[in-house]
Amino acid sequence: MNDTITHSPVRSDTEIAELGQQLRVDSVRAAKAAGSGHPTSSMSAADIMAVLLARHLRYDFRHPELPGNDHLILSKGHASPLLYSAYKAAGAISDDELLTFRKRGSRLEGHPTPRLPWVDVATGSLGQGLPIGVGVALAGARLDHLPYRTWVLCGDSEMAEGSVWEAMEAAGAEHLDHLTLIVDVNRLGQRGPTRHGWDLDAYARRIRAFGWHTVEIDGHDVAAIDQAMTEARSHQGAPTAIIARTRKGRGVAAVEDKEGKHGKPVADPDDAIRELGGERHLRVEVQAPPEAEQPARGGGDPHTALPRYATGGDPVATRTAFGETLAALGSLHDDVVVLDGEVGDSTKAQLFADAHPERYFECYIAEQQLIGAAVGFGVCGFTPFAATFAAFLTRAHDFLRMAAVSRSRINVVGTHAGVAIGEDGPSQMALEDLAMMRSVHGSTVLYPCDANQAVQLLTAMPDRPGISYLRATRGNTPVIYGPGDAFPVGGSKVLRSHPDDQVTLIGAGVTVHEALAAADQLVADGIRARVLDLYSVKPVDTQALRTAAEATGRFVIAEDHHPEGGLADAVMESFGNGYPAPRHTRLAVHTMPGSATPAEQLADAGIDASSIAQAARTLVEVGR
Amino acid sequence: MNDTITHSPVRSDTEIAELGQQLRVDSVRAAKAAGSGHPTSSMSAADIMAVLLARHLRYDFRHPELPGNDHLILSKGHASPLLYSAYKAAGAISDDELLTFRKRGSRLEGHPTPRLPWVDVATGSLGQGLPIGVGVALAGARLDHLPYRTWVLCGDSEMAEGSVWEAMEAAGAEHLDHLTLIVDVNRLGQRGPTRHGWDLDAYARRIRAFGWHTVEIDGHDVAAIDQAMTEARSHQGAPTAIIARTRKGRGVAAVEDKEGKHGKPVADPDDAIRELGGERHLRVEVQAPPEAEQPARGGGDPHTALPRYATGGDPVATRTAFGETLAALGSLHDDVVVLDGEVGDSTKAQLFADAHPERYFECYIAEQQLIGAAVGFGVCGFTPFAATFAAFLTRAHDFLRMAAVSRSRINVVGTHAGVAIGEDGPSQMALEDLAMMRSVHGSTVLYPCDANQAVQLLTAMPDRPGISYLRATRGNTPVIYGPGDAFPVGGSKVLRSHPDDQVTLIGAGVTVHEALAAADQLVADGIRARVLDLYSVKPVDTQALRTAAEATGRFVIAEDHHPEGGLADAVMESFGNGYPAPRHTRLAVHTMPGSATPAEQLADAGIDASSIAQAARTLVEVGR
Repeated sequence: MNDTITHSPVRSDTEIAELGQQLRVDSVRAAKAAGSGHPTSSMSAADIMAVLLARHLRYDFRHPELPGNDHLILSKGHASPLLYSAYKAAGAISDDELLTFRKRGSRLEGHPTPRLPWVDVATGSLGQGLPIGVGVALAGARLDHLPYRTWVLCGDSEMAEGSVWEAMEAAGAEHLDHLTLIVDVNRLGQRGPTRHGWDLDAYARRIRAFGWHTVEIDGHDVAAIDQAMTEARSHQGAPTAIIARTRKGRGVAAVEDKEGKHGKPVADPDDAIRELGGERHLRVEVQAPPEAEQPARGGGDPHTALPRYATGGDPVATRTAFGETLAALGSLHDDVVVLDGEVGDSTKAQLFADAHPERYFECYIAEQQLIGAAVGFGVCGFTPFAATFAAFLTRAHDFLRMAAVSRSRINVVGTHAGVAIGEDGPSQMALEDLAMMRSVHGSTVLYPCDANQAVQLLTAMPDRPGISYLRATRGNTPVIYGPGDAFPVGGSKVLRSHPDDQVTLIGAGVTVHEALAAADQLVADGIRARVLDLYSVKPVDTQALRTAAEATGRFVIAEDHHPEGGLADAVMESFGNGYPAPRHTRLAVHTMPGSATPAEQLADAGIDASSIAQAARTLVEVGR
Repeated sequence: MNDTITHSPVRSDTEIAELGQQLRVDSVRAAKAAGSGHPTSSMSAADIMAVLLARHLRYDFRHPELPGNDHLILSKGHASPLLYSAYKAAGAISDDELLTFRKRGSRLEGHPTPRLPWVDVATGSLGQGLPIGVGVALAGARLDHLPYRTWVLCGDSEMAEGSVWEAMEAAGAEHLDHLTLIVDVNRLGQRGPTRHGWDLDAYARRIRAFGWHTVEIDGHDVAAIDQAMTEARSHQGAPTAIIARTRKGRGVAAVEDKEGKHGKPVADPDDAIRELGGERHLRVEVQAPPEAEQPARGGGDPHTALPRYATGGDPVATRTAFGETLAALGSLHDDVVVLDGEVGDSTKAQLFADAHPERYFECYIAEQQLIGAAVGFGVCGFTPFAATFAAFLTRAHDFLRMAAVSRSRINVVGTHAGVAIGEDGPSQMALEDLAMMRSVHGSTVLYPCDANQAVQLLTAMPDRPGISYLRATRGNTPVIYGPGDAFPVGGSKVLRSHPDDQVTLIGAGVTVHEALAAADQLVADGIRARVLDLYSVKPVDTQALRTAAEATGRFVIAEDHHPEGGLADAVMESFGNGYPAPRHTRLAVHTMPGSATPAEQLADAGIDASSIAQAARTLVEVGR
């Protein structure tokens, strides 16, 4: 930016109002340069942003890593021009960079992402800012005891998202008084008016009912905004929501409070800029954060023993191994936090709660808040594990998808996978989770078949980038590996092998045991079968699969999952790039299960030992 | 059941209290017979169910299809023993059948499903009953003008789910006074106490803030329950929530109001039955529904023309074809209803709103309610289309999964698919939707590449069973097919073919056009390439793929989706069962996109014409 024409810092109400106009002008300019974007949604919140920057935010843009820095989450991510204009006004980016908005290679994307060092999390899927903000605020208030404030700026349309109310409940119940939500009530959604228009009290009533303090203001009155933010900062014992009446497109008659003006540049930007008083070059001095010590991380007792299970002893559920490992990881590493979807007794996350109650966060039956909080704890440098039934992680699919855009590093565990749960029936069975978690960008997907393997994979998860997922089984499974065995991510285990193998039986989780039994059955038919445990579903062990394909020529792949997007699809990924694929048969859950015992379920789905053996016989016959 | 010992119908408060005890006893017996289940969650709501059956529900169990029948949705689906015990008391099932609970083949599954004719929708994933009930109530109130009441019985734990509050907002705003929610506040969730315990007013405050009428009662006081239900039936202009304080495991000291008793049979069922006063054989006469005429369906103007687009004329976005076709379908069929996630101007569902405003339901930015309402309209015999950006359908993943368990027939359209949207960036790009929708049991997944194809596929969707999904593109694409061309579901189109083809280029949607351009480029290299438009992603055209594999030996598959679970995985499905797979290369979106133009995005992701051509060259070289 041109520092020579930078004025003295913005201080007075009049100067702040001018800053608001500058943010509008710059939003219009950015969208004009891009040829797309959301200037009108930026203009409604410009005065709010101006007051926040000039008077209340405490943030060092040169040192975004400072622990005392406030957190600002723009939940209405489409108002990115406003955020970027604010960064310019704060001296964080240049005017030239502002005008790269939405261009290829620019870090000023259509919706904010953490490619910018001042952005905690990606937004743009509405209703996510508050749940994540709750996680950030919880981390500061309960564990790090840091003085920062978490500011979430959201739109009125997104108040319809259930995830916002999951977060309202959590923040109210946790008395997160360092969390402030500002609702930009500009009355207009994308298609037309919102449900409540400018009925500020409709929002305030709802929010107050969830245990919040609320303030209703004119969102274009600098003094009122300032007073509300001051009140929010001083209010004790409850989070504050500032509900601000604003006008979309404020300041430009051609678009102000008009329908049909969402998500597009103003038609005549030069006129608009003139109407807004022309370009300004105000520079705002954002207050420095309070001195705060970097929270110590990496403590823990390095001598803590991981659980060990006796090979060939009593069978153990991988969910049990999960709970016991989690408790040990919590002792080893003081940055591990656990988030539960009110099923900790079943997932066995409860074992962590028993050992480390202060780092266990009950999110109740609110899976979006569960993952949102995990992302928030990740922002603050913790190593979060979020766990619930794998089936119910589908509730948080959008949060998981967006967590990848946020370059978040979180660990997710889903238990009670597949038909193997038995009698509870299909509502509780995860039969889609591998497809969901594989398709998350940059994810790791692990699926142990025994307790010792689960220990090793869980221990490896926090070192992985991105979203790591472990799928666990409800029922007990035999312990087939030793406590010391290594299971590198991206690897696999050959459990049976012979030079004369005619087919490879591939399983993961419960189907590994079925594949082993099938191999035994096949001996009677004179068929030698290799057995491969594909515990690392993503990344998949391409080398081992190709070796097995070359050696045996045939695969039978069995998975406790619907046929699409799971283990078989992962296997076949290894045979792209022109590499010859083996003949193969896929066994998966093609039917809609009902209630039955686990063994009946596996048989009915055609993924038990007999089904695998029969498929292998047929396949060997075909190839003869 | 043993009719000889059936008593005279339950009428008095005392008899209803006895019926409540019978429902408890039978819940204990069912769980005992099964060896699993949720008797304690059933026992808390037994008195509520008894009063509802004996005094307020209007339902003919012999004729569940009657249009005047009330709808009863057990949102706390784990309390299935209570529901089944109620069915027994109403004479709908025998005592023998009751004791088949959770056994293989029994229609009395662990959680209710519409395998039972009296069950509208599957429950068991909490927080879904109310959103679906809102759809059922909307259909009755706004379109069918039927006198039925929709009763939703939910637990207190599930009030934490955001989906419940999406529904609260919708029901309050729509003044659905024929909808009654009963909250069974038994204080105990699965892991432990709920957030609000027995603070009935905590629930009532929140619910009232959303525009509902509320009544707080002792849920074990027959007279109080009766009075509350009477009040709910007479209250005008707003839905009523009855918030009932109850005790989990009520009536059996060993489990009553005790932690750790969730989801398991009582330890000594015979003692429990004695404590509850032993088995009873009361029969309840449920009131007949009011006479009501079956709503006329199947009307419409059969001469309505479907849109037609000129081949080779101006390019047209498939989302535009969607909107225009939807408007025509609405004229052709009066049972078509459209649900919008407040993006109708972008998805083009708005064109239906313009033509048929009375059948257009704005669900605002609340995708769980969007799909829940669609399922509810489906229950009432409508043909719902729910549409939003494909990326945001991930919010409703659990509802889509459960809709399949419900044997629901709904149509879902997701627009703005893939990196092809351009500048808006990854938060708005669906890159996981094919994986999600393919893995839904029994789904149909369609992905048109041109406007005429979109017309035909949309027209076919309502005739498909289950969940049908169409993926639409934001940008304009060339019109390559004629208006009369047929595109059967499960088919594909060969766009280029020659006996000397060395490779097949497979695309769908935007990549079809890239594949065509790639084929042109390859001519210069002396490579003949077949081009296959795989518009039916599920079911996939196995025959055509095998024919192409035999003819050309090589596939290049290009998709605007993450590599997992999408088009390439669908293609390779055709080469299971031992059928030899072709050598192939997969092109998909491996990177995390930023902002860029659509053309830049396709190039950066490596799914544009040049990338496809290069992959084909390499593959042909490998095979030589």
